Amino acid sequence: MHPSLLQDSVRGCPKEIPHNEKLLSLKYESLDYDNSENQLFLEEERRMSFLGFKCLEISRWVICGLIGFLTGLIACCIDIAVENLAGVKYYVVKQNIEKFTEVGGLSISLILWAVLNSAFVMLGAVIVAFFEPGAAGSGIPQIKCYLNGVKIPRVVRLKTLVVKVCGVICSVAGGLAVGKEGPMIHSGAVVAAGVSQGRSTSLKKDFKVGGYCGVLFSLEEGASFWNQMLTWRIFFASMISTFTLNFFLSIYNNKPGDLSSPGLINFGRFESDSVAYNLYEIPLFIVMGAAGGLLGALFNILNYWLTIFRIRYVHRPCLQVMEAMLVAAVTATVSFAMIYFSNDCQPLGPDQSEDYPLQLFCADGEYNSMATAFFNTPERSVRSLFHNPPGRLFYNPLTLSLFTLFGILLAAITPNGSVSVRGLYGPHYGGGIVRMTLSLTVIMVEATGNVTYGLPIMLVLLTAKIVGDYFVEGLYDIHIKLQSVPFLHLEAPATSHWLTAREVMGAPVTCFNRIEKVGTIVDVLSNTSTNHNLGKICGLILRSQLIVLLKHKVRELARSRLTQRKLQLKDFRDAYPRFPPIQSIHVSQDERECMMDLTEFMNPTPYTVPQETSLPRVFKLFRALGLRHLVVVDSENRVVGLVTRKDLARYHLGKHGLEEMQLAQT
Amino acid sequence: MHPSLLQDSVRGCPKEIPHNEKLLSLKYESLDYDNSENQLFLEEERRMSFLGFKCLEISRWVICGLIGFLTGLIACCIDIAVENLAGVKYYVVKQNIEKFTEVGGLSISLILWAVLNSAFVMLGAVIVAFFEPGAAGSGIPQIKCYLNGVKIPRVVRLKTLVVKVCGVICSVAGGLAVGKEGPMIHSGAVVAAGVSQGRSTSLKKDFKVGGYCGVLFSLEEGASFWNQMLTWRIFFASMISTFTLNFFLSIYNNKPGDLSSPGLINFGRFESDSVAYNLYEIPLFIVMGAAGGLLGALFNILNYWLTIFRIRYVHRPCLQVMEAMLVAAVTATVSFAMIYFSNDCQPLGPDQSEDYPLQLFCADGEYNSMATAFFNTPERSVRSLFHNPPGRLFYNPLTLSLFTLFGILLAAITPNGSVSVRGLYGPHYGGGIVRMTLSLTVIMVEATGNVTYGLPIMLVLLTAKIVGDYFVEGLYDIHIKLQSVPFLHLEAPATSHWLTAREVMGAPVTCFNRIEKVGTIVDVLSNTSTNHNLGKICGLILRSQLIVLLKHKVRELARSRLTQRKLQLKDFRDAYPRFPPIQSIHVSQDERECMMDLTEFMNPTPYTVPQETSLPRVFKLFRALGLRHLVVVDSENRVVGLVTRKDLARYHLGKHGLEEMQLAQT
Repeated sequence: MHPSLLQDSVRGCPKEIPHNEKLLSLKYESLDYDNSENQLFLEEERRMSFLGFKCLEISRWVICGLIGFLTGLIACCIDIAVENLAGVKYYVVKQNIEKFTEVGGLSISLILWAVLNSAFVMLGAVIVAFFEPGAAGSGIPQIKCYLNGVKIPRVVRLKTLVVKVCGVICSVAGGLAVGKEGPMIHSGAVVAAGVSQGRSTSLKKDFKVGGYCGVLFSLEEGASFWNQMLTWRIFFASMISTFTLNFFLSIYNNKPGDLSSPGLINFGRFESDSVAYNLYEIPLFIVMGAAGGLLGALFNILNYWLTIFRIRYVHRPCLQVMEAMLVAAVTATVSFAMIYFSNDCQPLGPDQSEDYPLQLFCADGEYNSMATAFFNTPERSVRSLFHNPPGRLFYNPLTLSLFTLFGILLAAITPNGSVSVRGLYGPHYGGGIVRMTLSLTVIMVEATGNVTYGLPIMLVLLTAKIVGDYFVEGLYDIHIKLQSVPFLHLEAPATSHWLTAREVMGAPVTCFNRIEKVGTIVDVLSNTSTNHNLGKICGLILRSQLIVLLKHKVRELARSRLTQRKLQLKDFRDAYPRFPPIQSIHVSQDERECMMDLTEFMNPTPYTVPQETSLPRVFKLFRALGLRHLVVVDSENRVVGLVTRKDLARYHLGKHGLEEMQLAQT
Repeated sequence: MHPSLLQDSVRGCPKEIPHNEKLLSLKYESLDYDNSENQLFLEEERRMSFLGFKCLEISRWVICGLIGFLTGLIACCIDIAVENLAGVKYYVVKQNIEKFTEVGGLSISLILWAVLNSAFVMLGAVIVAFFEPGAAGSGIPQIKCYLNGVKIPRVVRLKTLVVKVCGVICSVAGGLAVGKEGPMIHSGAVVAAGVSQGRSTSLKKDFKVGGYCGVLFSLEEGASFWNQMLTWRIFFASMISTFTLNFFLSIYNNKPGDLSSPGLINFGRFESDSVAYNLYEIPLFIVMGAAGGLLGALFNILNYWLTIFRIRYVHRPCLQVMEAMLVAAVTATVSFAMIYFSNDCQPLGPDQSEDYPLQLFCADGEYNSMATAFFNTPERSVRSLFHNPPGRLFYNPLTLSLFTLFGILLAAITPNGSVSVRGLYGPHYGGGIVRMTLSLTVIMVEATGNVTYGLPIMLVLLTAKIVGDYFVEGLYDIHIKLQSVPFLHLEAPATSHWLTAREVMGAPVTCFNRIEKVGTIVDVLSNTSTNHNLGKICGLILRSQLIVLLKHKVRELARSRLTQRKLQLKDFRDAYPRFPPIQSIHVSQDERECMMDLTEFMNPTPYTVPQETSLPRVFKLFRALGLRHLVVVDSENRVVGLVTRKDLARYHLGKHGLEEMQLAQT
């Protein structure tokens, strides 16, 4: 009888990112949501009292509360920092423009603006490119992969979080067309991973994320390992997070305790009567959706080619910094040109509530409304767009169209920041880009605060998704494919019923005897020997478990057999999630001859499937239980193969039916 | 090699409902979300083109749209019928009261009111008690069980739907303290089951339900077999449903095409500034929650004893009708007394917008505000409660408290209608009763239209849940337990790790050979013989499949071997969901001697677990895949037992640790 050994990881991933959507990278490890129910684990569980379980349950809630609190705190810091930095910048530029409007020399203002933007962006880009390149981008594709069960290296580290927060502050302050949602979701995930790993590894699936959209995002993406208590806890964490954000913002705004300020995404309140929709408008919504889908597809194609270009030619950190600065300068220039050539003058309101009204070439008592659109953080622009009283700050259609068009173009050329603009340029367009229609619908319904708009919003988003899907995939999926991540979709490809476990599994499998010689184990782990004898399955043991075992046992063996301390589950947990490589464990010749009993460390009841099982059936089991490996046995219960994530992710529906991707080491 | 036979059902359930929460009834069948991947199925799947799958996908959306439309239509009918019937009733009673206020003889008004109420309720109760007793109650516990995978007989029949709709209209019009949410959720489920079974059995898990709360309900209760596309489709159906409801209501209200009317649950719009909450109010919310939890627990205990009483003594239909009429009369009397003794006079508003202002003993130009609270459908009462301009219809605290207190008491004594009052008497109280905190939070946030209240609402509900749970279970769970339903909770009981599959499984299992004599199969299915020979597992076949097989094969055999038509998957689908009993199939002595090849009809790759698998692990597999039976094998792959729903539902955490329930045939 033989426990099978599983390769935990392929070490040493190279620096370069693969960039071929026809390849599947082998460098990504899989997360394991299945408990290894070995004797140690069962003994611990059986020792635990009813009260113990209650405490565990309570501690989970406390941890979720803590995660929510910290995420809210981070959101608050980002918010305040962005407001202040952008405020200073706009103030300086505005003073300068006003000074030069009459006397000429507005080009100096332009240069000032471009330099300020570039400086902010350079700071952010340097931090990201040199300290933690993993913090680049919105972070959503990475978290999407993580929730899918793929372990993306370095994504949930504290360092990534710090760099990311600095990066997003600098980028937004520097006027880049990036948004806060992606980084907030990423931050929430890092906090969640950090806090929960600090306490208990069993909580590792508690990925939750900032604000209300966190629940939705996890729900839409992580729905395969879902359960009610998890939803509950995530909801709780989101509430705490919103509360924390509002609480600290209320203190910051000198209205301490007034918790009614809205969340990160809020379009303000619509008057119920003024915006009711009518039946005949429904075809209009569909047309809007189709247009959004087309625009979104165009955006995605543009972004796809730019991303390919970046991967090929802009992979040196200094080049990346320069690119970001260039984009920042272009953004400033375009904005400036838009303001300069705009004739959209609006009368100043009586209460002067705009932050940076710019008179420019308008008559006295009027101001340039295009300037207001650009002299604002994106969130404020949208709110002013929808909510200023008629006749005040109501952009004319030309201003609006130009602002939108250039905004989209700027977002498309902005590295890694392209997807958060959805709130700004209309949901139909966002729907066309990211295709996360469910979350987006609920967010929009929430943002407008009226469930009546549910159907139109959904219609628009659905049309956009269908039209967009016809041309090109969603932006996140494009980025995931470009990185060759073994991403599992919700279901196996529709036409894969003729494939069986026998055809997709990896074979032969490394097997050990229940009581095995230390030398054999070390050799197999070091890849200097293989062990493929066929035997009845009696359990499953992981590479990481063997390494911990060797590390402790070997030390014990060196001393005396009598003092041998019993290995605890804690020893395995302490090692999580960074196990030492096998090379770091020194085994003497004497020790190599010792026998090691694996019985109490292996999982004696791994999930197995017969060889004849169809791919969709294997897929379903794998996905529903969040497995990392599934043992394939023959009718005699002998191990014949092992199905892992890459074996399932390899098949996808192409234009000519089922296609198989190549596997790549990088 | 032997396929194992599975008992589809235990036929002939007795009329009487079991009423012992320590028993587990064997009469409930389990739903099967696992495809039987036999050769027929695989051949069909392999024949299907890519285009075929696309069509299937589109048809699912169309079906969901249709479900939403029909559900919305039903909601609309209920709404209009209730409004009209209640309107007539209140008008007649009001005329009568006004007539007798001065001259004396108000007792005649009381009798009139009581008789009207009783008449409505009698009509509803007669329809329900004599035509379809399964339509009684809110329907939520039944649908909760259905989503959990338990097949409750007669719950999703069309007849049940019709009776239910009539029943709820009569009950609400008759002034009983019942609500529309439960019946709406039930109606949605019936429509969904009907429409999807009419098309395709693969859609059978598409249970969705009326309005926005439908998604939430399914999500909270059905989360174990969840996937993203399903969420999406349910969301879509809900949107269509809301749209349909609004559209027809707009026509009814002579504002055709104006679709901005709110859904079934809506508290109207709160002015944002006037109801912001402050930090120091948070402890207040917690106290409110605790009070709600206490009240809720009291309610549940009262309801529990009344339910026990009803099951024991009020199970004859005529008694049930009389009970309902009695409650209706009591409701009218209490309401009347409340109005009569109330001194809460309020000045009449200038625009006379109340439907039934009652002057009673108030001065001219004033009206009795207690009467307004009772002379209204519950939904309108709540809306008037929150939304009348200050000084008008603003109930004084005494009125409000008395109204709430009597409302709760009336709801507690009302048969089967007790849980829909949550919207009416405050969320904290609802939270204490039903403990479906997540849905309730979202519904309340939605109803108030402001996400800012999320945290306080959640705090209140959470406290109510914790306090309530300390005393007694949630109301739905009480009712489910009283009916001895084998309900599977989200996770196995915490302290069940020492139980293994060997201990919980049912054994011995009925086994057949791959090619078996017809006589043997008939005898086993008729329970006149058993077949327990141990063999290696080669597949799994259901009782229902064998019956279809016998029915068709036997007929073929009687004619000629040459013309034998190949059995199609369609033959099995056509028989779903009502299979003929084995007694209806006549097998001659000659036919008994024929051999039948089961190979292409059995599922060759059923999920199996080793005997040593722990209960939580078995539970997880069972729940995650929505299984109906799980085969237990030994190390030689021989069938040793079968785990079914009742084996898992049997164990629960009592006050003294893990307890095992008795199994009962009824």
